[in-house]
Amino acid sequence: MRSADVVVALDVGGTGMKCALVRGDGTVLHAERHPTDAGRGPDAVVDTVLGVAEGLAGKARADGLDPVAVGIAVPGVIDEARGIAVWSANVGFRDVPLRDLAQDRLGLPTALGHDVRAGGLAEARLGAGRDAGHVLFVAIGTGIAAAHVVAGTAAFGAHGAAGEIGHILVRPGGPPCGCGRPGCLEAVASASAIGRRYSALAGVPTSAAEVADRAAAGEPLAADVWREAVEALADGLATGQALYDVETVVLGGGLARAGARLFDPLRAALHERMTFHREPRLVAAALGDEAGCLGAALLALDSMEK
Amino acid sequence: MRSADVVVALDVGGTGMKCALVRGDGTVLHAERHPTDAGRGPDAVVDTVLGVAEGLAGKARADGLDPVAVGIAVPGVIDEARGIAVWSANVGFRDVPLRDLAQDRLGLPTALGHDVRAGGLAEARLGAGRDAGHVLFVAIGTGIAAAHVVAGTAAFGAHGAAGEIGHILVRPGGPPCGCGRPGCLEAVASASAIGRRYSALAGVPTSAAEVADRAAAGEPLAADVWREAVEALADGLATGQALYDVETVVLGGGLARAGARLFDPLRAALHERMTFHREPRLVAAALGDEAGCLGAALLALDSMEK
Repeated sequence: MRSADVVVALDVGGTGMKCALVRGDGTVLHAERHPTDAGRGPDAVVDTVLGVAEGLAGKARADGLDPVAVGIAVPGVIDEARGIAVWSANVGFRDVPLRDLAQDRLGLPTALGHDVRAGGLAEARLGAGRDAGHVLFVAIGTGIAAAHVVAGTAAFGAHGAAGEIGHILVRPGGPPCGCGRPGCLEAVASASAIGRRYSALAGVPTSAAEVADRAAAGEPLAADVWREAVEALADGLATGQALYDVETVVLGGGLARAGARLFDPLRAALHERMTFHREPRLVAAALGDEAGCLGAALLALDSMEK
Repeated sequence: MRSADVVVALDVGGTGMKCALVRGDGTVLHAERHPTDAGRGPDAVVDTVLGVAEGLAGKARADGLDPVAVGIAVPGVIDEARGIAVWSANVGFRDVPLRDLAQDRLGLPTALGHDVRAGGLAEARLGAGRDAGHVLFVAIGTGIAAAHVVAGTAAFGAHGAAGEIGHILVRPGGPPCGCGRPGCLEAVASASAIGRRYSALAGVPTSAAEVADRAAAGEPLAADVWREAVEALADGLATGQALYDVETVVLGGGLARAGARLFDPLRAALHERMTFHREPRLVAAALGDEAGCLGAALLALDSMEK
């Protein structure tokens, strides 16, 4: 790539989209954010996505840069090979051929990817996992999802649904999960599950961050709820390690902001569970909420190499 | 490869080794079996392995064939990249540089692989998974282990320990596993776990095959034990599918010989658990106990292409 070449990168979420112009070496030259307003329906969202991408390409040209490709990351089930957002509840997409729509509108080669896999790609190549060849990136927020990145490529599976670590069974007969089954990791250890569990027991609406604070302050109920979540998380990560065998596990998403209050007990609980597994390094994500957008840029750059 | 070219393939287990001369197209030209006698210690076993391989290469030459490479599959933790059998309880190996030892002794390029990953490779390329790009091969016998094969290559992980599906938690607080933790899939659903469970409840030594027979004949205790194992297996396979997202799950090992008595209820239980996951085809292994040896041949052939 020449020094004036940039890619247009978008990470589309249910509430907002993070957008950037990114150079071949990963440098962000310009960043902007826009609301998604998913409630307007999928057609309107697609129109906004394409409009924002077009605007960014125009901005690049106005700045004397040359937009050479587009990368778009979207949540849900994504068929990367065919460039289709198969199913994305947050954004309201169902079988949207977003790659071709963007290519047609902007006249630029476009790559479509999964938001967590894009975030994992960025963390594995530019962030907290950059010295490891095998990385598991786990995003813990409202839900829990993972990306398994080997040699700089995120596995997407046969149907674009790999890495659904939020929906592995950790507590048979446990709390109901949004997916319809009981006892999924997400139903016990996501930020929303922790808040929900404490709120139900204490009778007061409480966020996971507040539970972490109260547990750290020595409140017994909060400490119990926090420990239960940490143990379920350790069970889930141990299962991930048994199947993937990575060098480094990178934790991102809102819950990872709890810092040592999460990482210290989680490392101890994970260590306890390592028998057949090789113990991975457990580290916090380094790129914050820009990981998905940077990963979308990497997908665009990778597609140009092919 | 020329038509006279063959590879020497060995699948080394705790009790016996399966050995063959295999052509580039996967045709087995000659097969033999030898006892391993692991009790003699690792040095003696290595000597037998190398002697058998040398004998096979000599037999090939005597038959007018040209042995061009060697493939050896071994159980345990295998470092494929460095050609080292890191840890293999069944065979008594601990950090044995088997690839280099074979290369030195036979003067032929040698590939070392993991037995279940080799078996999975063979099933994915030549056996029951040959029409799928993403295959999970699960061997259920004394233990439970898996190989994740994508585009004809088995993932080995960062430390040669990927695919340890026998050691994922399915029953918190459940039966103790040989690995030292309670509730692993292997501790509930392996052939030995099924036999052990029924034997303890019935007070009579009984094998998993007999439990399957008695369950099919309508004996309530056997039916309960069998159903518990099938449900745990479905939980484990659902977890594998959530993380790997494959097209086809191939079940091998002794337990798969139960046929419809295993596959019918297991398919139903797996179907019930599919929410976020895409449902995989569930099929029986096609290559029997020769899969590991054929896989060792494939590893040898692949190493020549590099």
